[in-house]
Amino acid sequence: MAMTTFASRHIGPSADEQARMLKTVGYESVDDLMTAAIPGSIRWHKPLNLPLAASEAEVLAELRALASANRMLVSMIGLGYYGTHTPPVILRNVLEDPSWYTAYTPYQPEISQGRLEALLNFQTVVADLTGLPVAGASLLDEATAAAEAMTLARRSSKVKSDVYVVDADVLPQTLAVIETRAEPLGIEVRVVDVTVEELPGEFFGLHLQYPGASGAVRDHEGLVRAAHDRGAIVTVAADLLALCVLREPGAIGADVAVGSAQRFGVPMGFGGPHAGYISVRQGLERTLPGRLVGVSKDAGGAPAYRLALQTREQHIRREKATSNICTAQVLLAVVASMYAVYHGPEGLSEIATRTHDMAARLAAGLRAGSVTTEHRAFFDTVTAVVPGQAEQIVATAATRGVNLRLVDADRVGIACDETTTFSHLRDVLAAFGLSHVDVTALDTTDAVPAGLRRTSDYLTHPVFSGHRSETAMLRYLRRLSDKDYALDRGMIPLGSCTMKLNATAEMEPITWPEFANVHPFAPAAQTQGYRRLISDLERWLAEVTGYDAVSLQPNAGSQGELAGLLAIRAYHQGRGDTQRDVCLIPSSAHGTNAASAVMAGMRVAVVACDDQGNVDLGDLDRKIEQHADRLAAIMVTYPSTHGVYEEGISALCDKVHTAGGQVYVDGANLNALLGYAKPGQFGADVSHLNLHKTFCIPHGGGGPGVGPVAVRQHLAKYLPSHPFLAADAPVGPVSAAPWGSAGILPIPWAYLRLMGPDGLTRATATAVLAANYVAARLREHYPVLYSGSEHLVAHECILDLRGITKATGVTVADVAKRLIDYGFHAPTMSFPVSGTLMVEPTESEDLAELDRFCDAMIAIREEIDRVAAGAWPADDNPLVNAPHPAAVVTADAWEHAYPRSVAAYPGRYADGDRSAKYWPPVRRIDDSYGDRNLVCACPPASAYEE
Amino acid sequence: MAMTTFASRHIGPSADEQARMLKTVGYESVDDLMTAAIPGSIRWHKPLNLPLAASEAEVLAELRALASANRMLVSMIGLGYYGTHTPPVILRNVLEDPSWYTAYTPYQPEISQGRLEALLNFQTVVADLTGLPVAGASLLDEATAAAEAMTLARRSSKVKSDVYVVDADVLPQTLAVIETRAEPLGIEVRVVDVTVEELPGEFFGLHLQYPGASGAVRDHEGLVRAAHDRGAIVTVAADLLALCVLREPGAIGADVAVGSAQRFGVPMGFGGPHAGYISVRQGLERTLPGRLVGVSKDAGGAPAYRLALQTREQHIRREKATSNICTAQVLLAVVASMYAVYHGPEGLSEIATRTHDMAARLAAGLRAGSVTTEHRAFFDTVTAVVPGQAEQIVATAATRGVNLRLVDADRVGIACDETTTFSHLRDVLAAFGLSHVDVTALDTTDAVPAGLRRTSDYLTHPVFSGHRSETAMLRYLRRLSDKDYALDRGMIPLGSCTMKLNATAEMEPITWPEFANVHPFAPAAQTQGYRRLISDLERWLAEVTGYDAVSLQPNAGSQGELAGLLAIRAYHQGRGDTQRDVCLIPSSAHGTNAASAVMAGMRVAVVACDDQGNVDLGDLDRKIEQHADRLAAIMVTYPSTHGVYEEGISALCDKVHTAGGQVYVDGANLNALLGYAKPGQFGADVSHLNLHKTFCIPHGGGGPGVGPVAVRQHLAKYLPSHPFLAADAPVGPVSAAPWGSAGILPIPWAYLRLMGPDGLTRATATAVLAANYVAARLREHYPVLYSGSEHLVAHECILDLRGITKATGVTVADVAKRLIDYGFHAPTMSFPVSGTLMVEPTESEDLAELDRFCDAMIAIREEIDRVAAGAWPADDNPLVNAPHPAAVVTADAWEHAYPRSVAAYPGRYADGDRSAKYWPPVRRIDDSYGDRNLVCACPPASAYEE
Repeated sequence: MAMTTFASRHIGPSADEQARMLKTVGYESVDDLMTAAIPGSIRWHKPLNLPLAASEAEVLAELRALASANRMLVSMIGLGYYGTHTPPVILRNVLEDPSWYTAYTPYQPEISQGRLEALLNFQTVVADLTGLPVAGASLLDEATAAAEAMTLARRSSKVKSDVYVVDADVLPQTLAVIETRAEPLGIEVRVVDVTVEELPGEFFGLHLQYPGASGAVRDHEGLVRAAHDRGAIVTVAADLLALCVLREPGAIGADVAVGSAQRFGVPMGFGGPHAGYISVRQGLERTLPGRLVGVSKDAGGAPAYRLALQTREQHIRREKATSNICTAQVLLAVVASMYAVYHGPEGLSEIATRTHDMAARLAAGLRAGSVTTEHRAFFDTVTAVVPGQAEQIVATAATRGVNLRLVDADRVGIACDETTTFSHLRDVLAAFGLSHVDVTALDTTDAVPAGLRRTSDYLTHPVFSGHRSETAMLRYLRRLSDKDYALDRGMIPLGSCTMKLNATAEMEPITWPEFANVHPFAPAAQTQGYRRLISDLERWLAEVTGYDAVSLQPNAGSQGELAGLLAIRAYHQGRGDTQRDVCLIPSSAHGTNAASAVMAGMRVAVVACDDQGNVDLGDLDRKIEQHADRLAAIMVTYPSTHGVYEEGISALCDKVHTAGGQVYVDGANLNALLGYAKPGQFGADVSHLNLHKTFCIPHGGGGPGVGPVAVRQHLAKYLPSHPFLAADAPVGPVSAAPWGSAGILPIPWAYLRLMGPDGLTRATATAVLAANYVAARLREHYPVLYSGSEHLVAHECILDLRGITKATGVTVADVAKRLIDYGFHAPTMSFPVSGTLMVEPTESEDLAELDRFCDAMIAIREEIDRVAAGAWPADDNPLVNAPHPAAVVTADAWEHAYPRSVAAYPGRYADGDRSAKYWPPVRRIDDSYGDRNLVCACPPASAYEE
Repeated sequence: MAMTTFASRHIGPSADEQARMLKTVGYESVDDLMTAAIPGSIRWHKPLNLPLAASEAEVLAELRALASANRMLVSMIGLGYYGTHTPPVILRNVLEDPSWYTAYTPYQPEISQGRLEALLNFQTVVADLTGLPVAGASLLDEATAAAEAMTLARRSSKVKSDVYVVDADVLPQTLAVIETRAEPLGIEVRVVDVTVEELPGEFFGLHLQYPGASGAVRDHEGLVRAAHDRGAIVTVAADLLALCVLREPGAIGADVAVGSAQRFGVPMGFGGPHAGYISVRQGLERTLPGRLVGVSKDAGGAPAYRLALQTREQHIRREKATSNICTAQVLLAVVASMYAVYHGPEGLSEIATRTHDMAARLAAGLRAGSVTTEHRAFFDTVTAVVPGQAEQIVATAATRGVNLRLVDADRVGIACDETTTFSHLRDVLAAFGLSHVDVTALDTTDAVPAGLRRTSDYLTHPVFSGHRSETAMLRYLRRLSDKDYALDRGMIPLGSCTMKLNATAEMEPITWPEFANVHPFAPAAQTQGYRRLISDLERWLAEVTGYDAVSLQPNAGSQGELAGLLAIRAYHQGRGDTQRDVCLIPSSAHGTNAASAVMAGMRVAVVACDDQGNVDLGDLDRKIEQHADRLAAIMVTYPSTHGVYEEGISALCDKVHTAGGQVYVDGANLNALLGYAKPGQFGADVSHLNLHKTFCIPHGGGGPGVGPVAVRQHLAKYLPSHPFLAADAPVGPVSAAPWGSAGILPIPWAYLRLMGPDGLTRATATAVLAANYVAARLREHYPVLYSGSEHLVAHECILDLRGITKATGVTVADVAKRLIDYGFHAPTMSFPVSGTLMVEPTESEDLAELDRFCDAMIAIREEIDRVAAGAWPADDNPLVNAPHPAAVVTADAWEHAYPRSVAAYPGRYADGDRSAKYWPPVRRIDDSYGDRNLVCACPPASAYEE
């Protein structure tokens, strides 16, 4: 009964359709095609050793069993992870809504205005609460944000020192990530108890925690001044909820603020994903890592949002990049920003005040029972001093359903949050033997010192007060998502991004409370469900990639790259090859590779590509010879970033190994390999995978992503560790949480379980078939740039528009924007080759949609020909004016050289139905205007007046 | 901390906004307003005795506790309720998607094309599978559909007999409902074992079950012929899944088919809601009860859907109506139709075949163990004959996690379905002591006789084969919902329909498995959670209405009306007043009232209204005198259908009581009373409520609804009963399931729990304030037709356009359609007064949206003035041409007397943002064309070619 398998739902083209596609491509069968496409030398012939495919009902039942193996205690552990109520209207209409979660990164801003507005709101929240005017559109987590702030400080400070000072009251996982990141860069991290120790004489930066991990709230203004006096840059890691009542970092002079927006409605999810944040003072905006949304204007002068200052990002700057950050946490940043929109300043203040009141009440209760508390000034976290009794108290609290933090044998940490109730306080007090204390009758005198009380306003923009009823909020969410184009509307044929189906059955479990509401540091006995799921997933990913060990900790591909390179570095160091620091990278590589290599303490050497776009093996020989025993590694993508199965991959691996180097295969294109070839078996030592590509975690509008790193046995002990799992591991953590974004791991688990070995293999073949079908249909209209043996591409194809542009002036951007009018998201523009479009249809698009896309591209080619023939002026044609919003096409005046109908409905729409056509909300956006006039927080409403 | 209560999210206007609204209305405070508006004689001054409001998190936790008090056994009980897999993509993107569930009934077809297409698909599914060409857009459940078929037969048959013959193998609950409905109409139901007994000599109709409740599949062709020979109409109650492999009712000559679409992906939900269905042969289409979607064309000649043949419906025909059906089960019909779209004919056939294979395998296993099975021919249900052991076997099966049907002491019924697995079969066999039987090795010889095997095709329309991948399905659902306007886009100010917020927290629980997957006849011990929830809800509803007892069984308001009137009838009969059969109904009443009275065996006498729209008490006196001791009841709506708190209500109740009649207060307008007046305390004896109005069950595009009936003590014993709860109750069931649509009762439970006594009262006052605010702002532009003391309206107001129409030719329809261009759903058109618009803003719209609506109405009035002044021709102006789809406004040619911009963007849109404007997919639809050319199934794709 093949029809009702999940694979037949995931894979778009039916058997009949595949037969028709094969005919166009010129092969008898999918097997023939794959045999021709994939080099025999790397072909894997055995079935994948995975559980056989199960139905959606079976897999959901298995996941329910795993979920129920997690115990949901009330978490008062704190340390950067807090209970929070996700407002149901946001849960359902963002986190559980495909129009939000299947969207891509807003690189095509004209069709991304909804999520860009949500991200601008996020930036406004962060900027307002931290008191620093420029905030990014989210980072991966607080710990990596702190590490990014460290490198930002290093390049911004004029001090020549390599010393970075960290407040001893820092979150322990933040310190661990800072140390991991500091070591390869030659930064010396010095931990200082700022309450008793002096600052060192010279240092380039200072990291303060506010409030501290202990809960203490301290006035850091003097320290900031002292650091500034010595030329250092000061980063304050601050809790956003605390900042609703505490003096903001900007007001005490901080240069940078970092932290997490988790407790703004984002479930703990056993560690992530959550939105990390960063904001900086004026003057540092161009040093910000990660994405930044800014306001610009469209071709008609209307305000419009887009990603600002992109030229400073890793994919453009390559080895000159200062950060490898690529993925953000857009979906979670949207949740956090909407939480602020829904609650508004009064609501946030009330939540903060109530949280503080609970902590104050608890401290009073402890003191009433003669238990000492460590600090008089705190926001939400109380540290109780109970010599020798801490372990017992934590255990007793757990039996009452509450997790506390075991600080050490003598101290217990208790963090209150939005969800804390009197009943929880009673349970905590009972664990301290204080059942008799009446929590309702306690003194709740404020524990925030007067001097640290916030006096400035925040969230005064109308967006934070106009959506206070659920009805208004629902409509705001709908209105924003209506502006955007996501997979729920049509194809997103983005080369290298694998925008395939994110099936509902895969998505359902992530918002179940048993997965959503688990603290990452909850005891192992309470998290057996998660641990079994993680262990399954590690095993299955190792199997499909041919590696021996997998770490799921990296919470983005970039972090996976770093972890993989750190493993290589540690391996060489472990063998005494400390001089091996050169990383070879082909010229076609994604810029992130180079940036990661630099972050791992390596020097990048570029290997040329030949005319066919393949790695030039002759040049490789030369580079190997040139760097000799300094060769650390080569980083290649396979299939290549040109979308080709390079024949030389085996030879390449051999050459590098022979020279003592390690082979890193970037797993970005794994969707073209699964079931057909295993990097760990054809010569690679390490890969990172992108679970948000091949393994169906949705792109979420630009994140979350998960970037596990997979290695062969000799590198296994160099995988990232975590202070809460093991001490003294050779390589520290690359993410704040032990398993990174554990909360979304049910998605790839479900995908692998639903597809089984056969389904995964068929998916790969169908993806390759679809790419070759598109190439075959479009080849006569646009040159297909590279192909491998038998003129086949892998899972994507590059359409070369350079000749067309030269001849007609029509650019890839014109074609990309015109595709919007036809009802499509553009392919990848100008990567990996400038002036081209890279198309990756994936296995999930059925033949009707593939044909609709090909027909659109052919029709656009005919439009280009009309421009070339002079029928339409070069400066007034449907391409150069694209996209066409409804407001433009319905305007009273129409003075274009082509009719309105050509602007409005050039294409064929799904099922021949144009009545639900997607209309872009703005005209083409002027990127450079926005960069020249940088505005990164909500502009006043008057800016939108018509 | 008032701000974060749920009530402040549910209620749209903030305290500030309310103050501004009060100023416009002319009152100092909400209290003053309510004191002025509501007659002192009925005002209730005590707080409601309900639990105090709880937060969303608390209420969801309480509901989780209730859910976990239900035990989810594998259900093999059958009897019309089966396990089914709701495809996750449909669950999430229909059942859990506000764009589907917050939509209204498609009375404004131009903004309802998405759900109308989904319903047309439903009709096609039913027509194809039953082999009868005209199917309705769903009925309430199988049992009521069967009762509707009985009355359809009576009016269509030329036989003069009052005898209705029912197959003894009928579902027991269907028989019970048929009997309830037959009695007041003087129909004699004769149950005949058609396998052994002769048909009686004369009868007007025959009801056959196919397959039978016992599971038996019989060839009914001879019986149908015999019935036809005697002039009877034959109804076949058929299982849709069975019809994928069994010969269709149309092929054996049936005139009518009825049944349930539950097992097409709709969760059992402890009895409902599910979509009942009905289809008829050519010639009977105008006798169909309920709604019927048909194809017509729009003003541009394009195909467009709308409700067909509405003139035969109850709201127009009043006491001449043949059915009181009003609500359908649209949301569930959409789910069922999408299940068919997703699986297609091959998928449905495969599911049916597998289900049959399981049953055949089970029967073989029983026989292998020497257990006799009752029938050789069956589809999915096997009846095992086990003299004296049935109870023990059923109990043993339950301990193994499977519920079987205890037929009687000697027989056990076992129903297989889509979810049945080998493991379930093993559990069943083990309960019979047959653990040793190997289910994989059994003979599965087909148990469908060759002559009953289906040979005809079904679902050949392309819509049933073009959406087979999840990606394609997701986009189809999105595209359809994008065509529609629901509460997630803006206000739906529908008088008498109370389109208020359906909060997410209220909606979440209904798709939890512990509520969704419970069979209505599961043992009481397994359904304690549901029973506690139901008992709470009955108690709370009794409290807020002032009654003594409540039945939640009626699954629509119409059924509640019938139940209430049957209680009155039974009460009079119980006192020997068998002659009391006159029901007084004011001329302003909703047509359903009169239709229900007729169905309850009463004669309708109309009471006039005075010039102010109030019941004319003088005429009431005359009617009471006229009917004297035949007076059974009066049915009034309070506040009146004119939206007025009539001062005379107390006098009215007294007069009727004095004359020996009972007072029925229609609870449609309860949203104007809650917390301020209780019908059960101000003189009424019985009311039905509409949980889909006041109590937040979403309208779902036209259903589900729930219509509980509430009575004073003397009527309590006459509430509807159910054969599975009690034998020999004075009044039988009005719905198939004991608690009707139990699966959605968590919604009103949550609403009451979240609002608490104070929140409910504030909601009422805000709804009244909002209506008076709209009336105050619009009064100078449109006359407000009726008002009560102090010139106040209740929760809605009637705008009188008759003068405008007379003077300018602009009609209510023109204004209603023009409102679409402004981004609104129209108010109620021409009810209760022809030529008027009735506006009910509800408490959930904030001031910004109320003002946006008022501004739009005022702007439209200015447009009317331009027509009146001759600035725009009467036959070419933005009103008469409204609505304006994007395709019209972007057309190359524009030859109208007004500019495109006036057509496209006449209004102010939310937050001043017109970029996400809702565009209607079609122009104004020609209703009469469609009725003249009735097409009620999917037209061929060629019809849509442009």
